[in-house]
Amino acid sequence: MTPPPIPTFPDDLVNRTASSRIVLCVMDGVGGLPHPDHGRTELEAARTPNLDALAAASSLGLHDPVAPGVTPGSGPAHLALFGYDPLVWEVGRGALSALGVGFDLRPGDVAIRLNLATLDEERRITDRRAGRPADDVARPAVERLKREVDLGAGVTFHLFHEKEHRVVLVLRPDEGRVLGAALEDTDPQDVGIPPLDPQARDAASEPTAALLASFIRQAEVILAGEPAIRGVLARGIAAYEPFPSMETRFGLRAAAYARYPMYRGVGRLVGMTVPGVPGSDEEAVALLEAQAGAFDFHFIHAKAPDARGEDGDFDGKVAAIEAVDAWIPRLVALEPDVLLVTGDHSTPAGYGAHTWHAVPVLLHSRWARPTATTFGETACRSGDLGRVRGVDLVSLALAHAGRLQKFGA
Amino acid sequence: MTPPPIPTFPDDLVNRTASSRIVLCVMDGVGGLPHPDHGRTELEAARTPNLDALAAASSLGLHDPVAPGVTPGSGPAHLALFGYDPLVWEVGRGALSALGVGFDLRPGDVAIRLNLATLDEERRITDRRAGRPADDVARPAVERLKREVDLGAGVTFHLFHEKEHRVVLVLRPDEGRVLGAALEDTDPQDVGIPPLDPQARDAASEPTAALLASFIRQAEVILAGEPAIRGVLARGIAAYEPFPSMETRFGLRAAAYARYPMYRGVGRLVGMTVPGVPGSDEEAVALLEAQAGAFDFHFIHAKAPDARGEDGDFDGKVAAIEAVDAWIPRLVALEPDVLLVTGDHSTPAGYGAHTWHAVPVLLHSRWARPTATTFGETACRSGDLGRVRGVDLVSLALAHAGRLQKFGA
Repeated sequence: MTPPPIPTFPDDLVNRTASSRIVLCVMDGVGGLPHPDHGRTELEAARTPNLDALAAASSLGLHDPVAPGVTPGSGPAHLALFGYDPLVWEVGRGALSALGVGFDLRPGDVAIRLNLATLDEERRITDRRAGRPADDVARPAVERLKREVDLGAGVTFHLFHEKEHRVVLVLRPDEGRVLGAALEDTDPQDVGIPPLDPQARDAASEPTAALLASFIRQAEVILAGEPAIRGVLARGIAAYEPFPSMETRFGLRAAAYARYPMYRGVGRLVGMTVPGVPGSDEEAVALLEAQAGAFDFHFIHAKAPDARGEDGDFDGKVAAIEAVDAWIPRLVALEPDVLLVTGDHSTPAGYGAHTWHAVPVLLHSRWARPTATTFGETACRSGDLGRVRGVDLVSLALAHAGRLQKFGA
Repeated sequence: MTPPPIPTFPDDLVNRTASSRIVLCVMDGVGGLPHPDHGRTELEAARTPNLDALAAASSLGLHDPVAPGVTPGSGPAHLALFGYDPLVWEVGRGALSALGVGFDLRPGDVAIRLNLATLDEERRITDRRAGRPADDVARPAVERLKREVDLGAGVTFHLFHEKEHRVVLVLRPDEGRVLGAALEDTDPQDVGIPPLDPQARDAASEPTAALLASFIRQAEVILAGEPAIRGVLARGIAAYEPFPSMETRFGLRAAAYARYPMYRGVGRLVGMTVPGVPGSDEEAVALLEAQAGAFDFHFIHAKAPDARGEDGDFDGKVAAIEAVDAWIPRLVALEPDVLLVTGDHSTPAGYGAHTWHAVPVLLHSRWARPTATTFGETACRSGDLGRVRGVDLVSLALAHAGRLQKFGA
């Protein structure tokens, strides 16, 4: 049984004439676990005078990015923060991967996630992930495919190595041509048998199946001499269709400021403008300052807390959070009606990866109900927002910004 | 997009042979914001010895009436408290308006919300709200329509002025006649063009469309000499169908005690008996005392906290809450199995209107897990009930009253 999706709020409550501004500051992976020596999390151990001062005039809480117990990837976690329940608004894995490597997907593109795989002389799969090759082993193989595969006229293809065995193929039809994306995976999810042939589920996808079959055949010829990487398996094939924008749904003209392409990509997916490509968090803040009057919703992304958490570097993550704290006053100085500071998920240094743990939230507005003078998991646990889902933060921000009408009489 | 329903609990868990009693005391708009001088909310600033004593033997919590960030009107908020998720159980706006003015809607009635509007000589709309007329301007116009419109035999009509430009028209077919209500609005949501003609979406609604067209035509003739109020636009047309009752759904024979017609109306919508029309809260309590043995679920409503909140009168709201506190012992003396004290939404005096802020809840029963000796936002924030949706309070009350069976073996 598929559980019903969780409703958020009826879109028709949105007040489209309001002129208030919302700033969403995401400290990637900010949620943590208590340090065994002193019991404080990374956010609690960090010296964050600016966030603490903000907390004293904010409503605090914790959010589950997707659902309790669910560890989100960055894509779904950000979709939730933008008000798109990732259990409802599905992004094809291929599309998310292409966005993740920073490729500028356009409507009509077909994005396909590929696994590099090992096949034997009879085309039987012996390893569905080609032994999880190191990046410096996988990348040259991908470069060869890029150079040597020829799909003929009417289409261009783009190929990207993600990590280990994971590769993204984007088929872009020429102007006026349409490629369907209703295709079965070629990964049989088993070894000892050959890959499945690309299979179209409708007529519009027959040419796509033919192109993919051609790509796969050529790849196996080109890679025939390789020790482990001898072919590809297609998993997750999707046409790229941007979602109805945040402006359409919430009346918010939105902009994204992020160093890393993935986050700009997810922003674009929901219709955000990307005013530039900052080289540092400070440049991202400067871009935001320059655009402050031009948008209703500003999303600024700081990657370092997550990166240091993934490294297992508690002190490094503390320092990364302190670095964000240092530029918080520049966001406050813009006097947004709502300043929301949170993370997309937890990345405790002691765990060294994304986790499912709830994420601290600070919502600053003149209508806040403050409960603490620090920002951290402990303070947030007894905050006024309570425990919400990531997707609820947009309705809370809209409400605090005077952008939601009353529901019913 | 219509959001999918929120699951609450399977209705078949209800124990229909229990004889326990639940009293729900709604302090309208009780939730507040901290006063800038002393940081306490209205409920926290009020001297409430009786509620505080009750809190010491109760489970506390906060509820979001509809969903995080959603500011509810009184109708949907009360539906939630009665166990009817307002995102699922939609009430036509016309029906809610008619209930709101205290009209005794019957099944088969068609309730239509009208805007008074300004039309020019060519019937083009120049103001969809007739300049939001003052009540003493609008009311005489409505009275003229009431006297002078003639819809002929087979139907009676009832017309009520709500507020400013808002009017409710109820069409009541004679015994044996049916009026469909599948009609498009005549409000084109734009000016410079004439109103739309009433349009039936099915055959059963053709006679209704003809009646509405006749009403609209006559109204324009009758109002032709008026400076601003020169016609009506229909918005929200619905047949009145009471919901399955609380007795059907929850096994609760229910009664409502409320000074204001809106609240009696919403009670009737879910099958509550209305034993009388009290002239004061004290009379409402006396009515409840007289009926204590006759019903399983007693809903008593106190309006003043909301009214003073809407006035922006912090001290007045404090006094209104203290006035409710004074009669709480009379509810306690009835020894209900569950005494639930909460609000339908927040109306902070500092905001001067309904808001989305979570609402304090006190659930008194012998199975409570007390955590505080005061009743207020701060105490409720760390209470045992945690943060729930308004619609969850009925299942909690049923459980504490021994009215829900175990789910599964």
